[in-house]
Formats: sequence, C-alpha cells, structure tokens
Amino acid sequence: MGFPELKNDLYLRALLKQDTDTTPVWIMRQAGRYLPEYRETRAQAGDFLTLCKTPDLACEVTLQPLRRFELDAAILFSDILTVPDAMDLGLYFSTGEGPRFERPVRSQGDIDKLFVPDPNDTLRYVMDAVTLIRHELGGKVPLIGFSGSPWTLATYMIEGGGSKDYHHCKGMLYSNPQALHQVLDITTQAVVAYVNAQIEAGAQAVMIFDTWGGALSPEAYKEFSLRYMQRIVEQVHREYDGETIPITLFTKGGGQWIELIADTGCNGVGLDWTISIDEARSRVGEKVALQGNLDPNVLYASPEIIRQHVKTLIDKFGPHNGHVFNLGHGIHQTVDPDHLKVLVDAVHEFGAAIRQG
Amino acid sequence: MGFPELKNDLYLRALLKQDTDTTPVWIMRQAGRYLPEYRETRAQAGDFLTLCKTPDLACEVTLQPLRRFELDAAILFSDILTVPDAMDLGLYFSTGEGPRFERPVRSQGDIDKLFVPDPNDTLRYVMDAVTLIRHELGGKVPLIGFSGSPWTLATYMIEGGGSKDYHHCKGMLYSNPQALHQVLDITTQAVVAYVNAQIEAGAQAVMIFDTWGGALSPEAYKEFSLRYMQRIVEQVHREYDGETIPITLFTKGGGQWIELIADTGCNGVGLDWTISIDEARSRVGEKVALQGNLDPNVLYASPEIIRQHVKTLIDKFGPHNGHVFNLGHGIHQTVDPDHLKVLVDAVHEFGAAIRQG
Repeated sequence: MGFPELKNDLYLRALLKQDTDTTPVWIMRQAGRYLPEYRETRAQAGDFLTLCKTPDLACEVTLQPLRRFELDAAILFSDILTVPDAMDLGLYFSTGEGPRFERPVRSQGDIDKLFVPDPNDTLRYVMDAVTLIRHELGGKVPLIGFSGSPWTLATYMIEGGGSKDYHHCKGMLYSNPQALHQVLDITTQAVVAYVNAQIEAGAQAVMIFDTWGGALSPEAYKEFSLRYMQRIVEQVHREYDGETIPITLFTKGGGQWIELIADTGCNGVGLDWTISIDEARSRVGEKVALQGNLDPNVLYASPEIIRQHVKTLIDKFGPHNGHVFNLGHGIHQTVDPDHLKVLVDAVHEFGAAIRQG
Repeated sequence: MGFPELKNDLYLRALLKQDTDTTPVWIMRQAGRYLPEYRETRAQAGDFLTLCKTPDLACEVTLQPLRRFELDAAILFSDILTVPDAMDLGLYFSTGEGPRFERPVRSQGDIDKLFVPDPNDTLRYVMDAVTLIRHELGGKVPLIGFSGSPWTLATYMIEGGGSKDYHHCKGMLYSNPQALHQVLDITTQAVVAYVNAQIEAGAQAVMIFDTWGGALSPEAYKEFSLRYMQRIVEQVHREYDGETIPITLFTKGGGQWIELIADTGCNGVGLDWTISIDEARSRVGEKVALQGNLDPNVLYASPEIIRQHVKTLIDKFGPHNGHVFNLGHGIHQTVDPDHLKVLVDAVHEFGAAIRQG
C-alpha cells in the first residue's frame, strides 16, 4: 500500500527484546478525554460511536496525542465492542451507564444467531481508519491495532453491558459451560479475522485487552479466557509483508498468572500496577517483553513526584531489553496533559540514562 | 455479662488451626438482600441506616440466616462506614449510588477536624447490637465483630463515597502522603477502639475488611494499607475474658500479598476466588488459617454443580486444620436461598468426609 518508511521503531524493537537507546513509551487511552482537542473532535462528531465509525475523525484523535508528546507508538482509536456490534447485537451508549447491547446473548437461540462478521464489510470503517492513520503517521511511529479478548467481549455480550458481579456470564460459565464455550469460540474466530484484517490494513503490532480476565478464578481464567487468547496468538499474522508483528496480551488483574500468559507465545505481557515490575521481570522476563505499569493516579502528583516514580520504575526494570513503558490502565480523564508530557520526557531521559550505566 | 455457653466452636477452632470434625462455614453478607425475611425487616426499618442503628432490628437480621442454614458463625449486621459516620462526616445512602459522605476529607482543615469517636457513645448502637445478638444467639455459634480497614475507610472518607479510580485518595497518596498518613493514623485509632469495644460487648472473633486494598500498587499496599492493619492486629484484644479472640484480615484482590498479610500475626487470611486455595495453603498455610474462597457466582448453578465445586475446593485444601469455608466475596442479592443451603450442607458433608479419609 506504499506506506511511508518507519522512522522510530523503539516500540517494536522493545517488544522483540532487541537493543534500544532508551525505553519506549505509549499510554493506554492516550487519545482520550483528558485532551481538550479530543473533547472538541468528539463534540464535532456528536457522539462516541460516530467518532469511532468516521475514519477521518478516528484518525484525527489517534494523531492528537502524538502532536503534544514524544510517544513511541500510536494506537488505533476505536472501541473494544466494535466486533459484537458487527455481530448485530445493537451497541449503544447510554449516558452515565456506559456501553449497552440491545440484544444480549442469553439463550441457545441467541447463541445460534451469532456469526463471524466480515471485517472488510461491516467493520470496514475500522480498516479504513487503520490505513488512513498509517498513511497520516508518515512513518513517525508504529501503529498498534487491538481487540478485546474473547472473554472480555463475552462479558458485555452476555450481560448486555458492563457488570459488577457478572451474574449472567458467570451464571452461564458455571451452569452451562458448553454454551459459554460456543460464545467464546465464535467470538475468537471473529477477533482473529478482525485483528488480521487490521494487520492487512496497516497495523504494525497488536494488543489484546483482557479487561475482565482478572474477575475469574484461576481455573476459569485458564479455561475461559487464556485458552482463547492462546488461539489468537496462534492464529493471527505474526509476520506480514516482510515485517514481524508483535502481539501483547494484557489481563487486568492478571498478575498472579503472568507465567501462563507468557507461555502463550505472545511477545509482550501487559501489567497493571498491582505487581512490581522487577518481580514480573524475574518471573517471565526471559520469555517476554513487559508493558507497564505505573498507577495512572501518579499523574495527579507534581512534576517532580511524577519524575521520581518514572525513575523508580525504570530502575526496577533495570538495564535490560524488553520494557515498554505505559500506565497500568488507561489515563484518567481529569489528568492535566502537561503532566503526561513530564512523564513521557522522563521515560526517555531515565531510559537512556540506565542504558548508559 | 453472663453470656450463654458456646455450643459450636468449629469456627474458632479452625481459625486457631485446632482439630475439627468438619469444615466450618459462614458466608459474607449472609444477612442480606437475597433473604426475603431480610427484605421484609429492612422495609420495616424504612431505610438501611435505620436498620443498622436499631439494635433490635440489627439483631433480627443477624439471626435470620442461622434459622435457615447450619452456619458455624454469626456476623454482626452493620455497615463498614459506621466509624467515619461517627467522625461526623455525614453518612447517607443515595439511591443507586451507594454510600456517600456529606463532608468528604480533602483539605488539611478537614483532616484537622477528624477525631476518634468514643465507641460507647456515638457508636453505642453497635455495641448494644453486639451484646443483644450474643445473648439471643444462646451460644449456638460464635459472633464475629468487624470493621473496614483504615485504607478502605479512608477511600470513602476522601472520595466522599465509592470510587472507580480513587482520584482524590490516590491523588493524596501520591501528592501528599503525609496527609494520607494522618487520615490513616486517626482512622486506625478509631478502628482499634471500635473493635475492642465490640469484643468487650461480646464479639468472639473479629474480621477486618480491606475491600479496596487490591487497588494499590505493592509498595502503596504495604505503606498505606497493610501497615495500619498490622497496628490493628497488634492493638486489639487477642484474649478477652479468658477466651482467645481470633482476627482475620481480608484484602480483596490481595492474592499476590498473602505472605505479607500472614506475617502481621493475624490468625486468618481471607481469600477472594482469584487464588487457588491449595496454592494459598502451600504459601502461608503453616502460619495462618485460610478463609474462602468460592466464586459467589457458583451459587447460580444447579445444586449438583454447587456440590461439585464445594467438594473440589475442600479436596484442594486437603485434610488439614485451618480452613473456614466462605465465598470469595459477599453473596449476591439475586441468589436463591435454597442454593445456599445446598452449599452449607455440602461443606459439612465433604468437610467431614475428608477428615475420615
């Protein structure tokens, strides 16, 4: 497709555990409500789904944080629920309640109606956004594509929205595990097709967000979340157009299970802030790169304190290959953007310093 | 106070790792909305706070689950926010939003106004309920007293209610840790006085609920939550009126830190369902008893499946002393009470069987 040549490959190199001059950094939800320019574009779109479904606008908000901060990767602006939306479950956003589905998946009849959407048909708007962003990036940094994990998508599909106690999906898990496996199987097929289409459209790395895997017991995590992420790792393009495509898995609340995650064969493991990165490195650092893991609330502190926390985290990881700096979860909407600039610059400063000894 | 003699000491013996004929069981939130008789008493009270503050009614709902199920402990019916309420922060419950405080603790001025409430004055209603329940129990099972952990109480006090991202309290943690330590210090003094007064009023064991400790980084957990629970373990009555008073600490999401929790010198460590109990036993089972840890959602499954999960959990723990069966979190309000009966009976059946080999 004649994409511009990549100038900054720090993020890709770190995920492949290759040498880098400094520690690369990107921020989950870096295109988000803490940026006034994002709020303006969103207002222009009218609503969140229109913003996701309009490639020009999705491209604009994807690029916004890169104009302010020396980030080492861009991530496609989209929603994790685009796939179940394309399965005709009727995604909508109700004020104050977050995402909802008009037609939640509860009965065998509901399950029988599920299908693998053609990512180049109903999800064409995502692929158009990916290709547009990749061109507009001009090779500045790589573009990350993403999807929710099958388990995480299934929680929304079955509950019909967010949930505190997972009544319906865990009810299915314990009462009728075969039914849940059917949901997860078809969702996994859909995610694989979706992620592969993103790669074919221009994504240079992929990330799977298992936001609700940490709500499971260890046995249920293995059977209902990890097993399907394993299939994704095995079935998505790991090379495309002559380039290696690194894949990162992130189970929020999964600190107890990072050995299992690393064993899937993924390149990177995302960490939330409830695990020390030095402990994580000693447990799985020979196998995988690690992404994370500052508490997003550190960004409410002063620039000086932010710099201290960045330095401590980089020192804990040590002068090794394989660290992608990030927060342990998405940036909060009430953070001062200037504080993020302090963080990003500090990562590069201390990341370079530790490599120079 | 002339309390009746205790007939069933399974729960106390298990926490002290003494021999028992079977595995004792109680259920977090066993006096709760899943019981129609609870809903009736609550309706009679008019609102939740009146229910908590009226000893006769608190006693009635505490005893209700014991009339239906062969539970091995009663737990005082109360709210974890009684202590900050007595600190004059103005607790109220707004429909659909949970607990709120009229006067959240944000500034140094707010902190300076905090004080240790006399538990036998503004919290007299709790002590009256404890003594009444202990008499009304007639020695059937022991009575557990409880408090929220200082960190968990502080999150509500500083946020002014529940929180998703802990903006204000973690903002204080990272920006002004000394201020947070002041809040935690006075709250710890208040909790110690409160728990000791419960013991003096008749509580035979105590439990500290650190519901939000799992939201912290490992370093912050040690400094801002565990450290203050350690002080509670050191300062509450461990013997009273010739009886040993076991203390259990429960950090939800704390599976990564159970060695640290066990090292406080507590008797029991509560586990949520994200850790396997056999792994927990191998890590800390020589030091402490373990409480837990079935996923509450198992109760949505059929009686047969519930029995299987109970058996699996008891088999995993093995034929050792020191297991108090419980859910990994409170019972959900939409559970069928008959399913809880199946669980309780299964615990006693399989708990006896494993001891007989």
